[in-house]
Amino acid sequence: MKFSVTVTLKKDVLDPQGKVVQDTLSNIGFNSLKSIRQGKFFEIEINETDQSKAEKKVNEICEKLLVNLIIENFKINKI
Amino acid sequence: MKFSVTVTLKKDVLDPQGKVVQDTLSNIGFNSLKSIRQGKFFEIEINETDQSKAEKKVNEICEKLLVNLIIENFKINKI
Repeated sequence: MKFSVTVTLKKDVLDPQGKVVQDTLSNIGFNSLKSIRQGKFFEIEINETDQSKAEKKVNEICEKLLVNLIIENFKINKI
Repeated sequence: MKFSVTVTLKKDVLDPQGKVVQDTLSNIGFNSLKSIRQGKFFEIEINETDQSKAEKKVNEICEKLLVNLIIENFKINKI
């Protein structure tokens, strides 16, 4: 069973990496850009046939290792 | 108009970062993990009301700056 996880910074957390991308884009001529924020993306494949169990496991993986819950949000999707 | 962009490594490209995550997870006791691959995620907001124009612009941003087309794939979604 395959899941995608996107991890994004919470709204009020500064995103220096995104800022650099934004500045670079305006330097090379993209003016209509309003904002850009960068996050992380994971594709997780799990040996588990029961969907709710698999989702629970992915959730645990996120909370234990992939995500810093103080500054980040995450979203799990089945793919 | 807001778009999400996910950038993933192509299938045959090694993913050392994902490998480290995978090893760490098996070290802390997750055995049912089959594979995990890491990518990048962007949230792009653009000052443009026409959707097809906006999508074209996001596409250009990806190809010019965000994505290395030799080793990476990308996917754009409207959010």
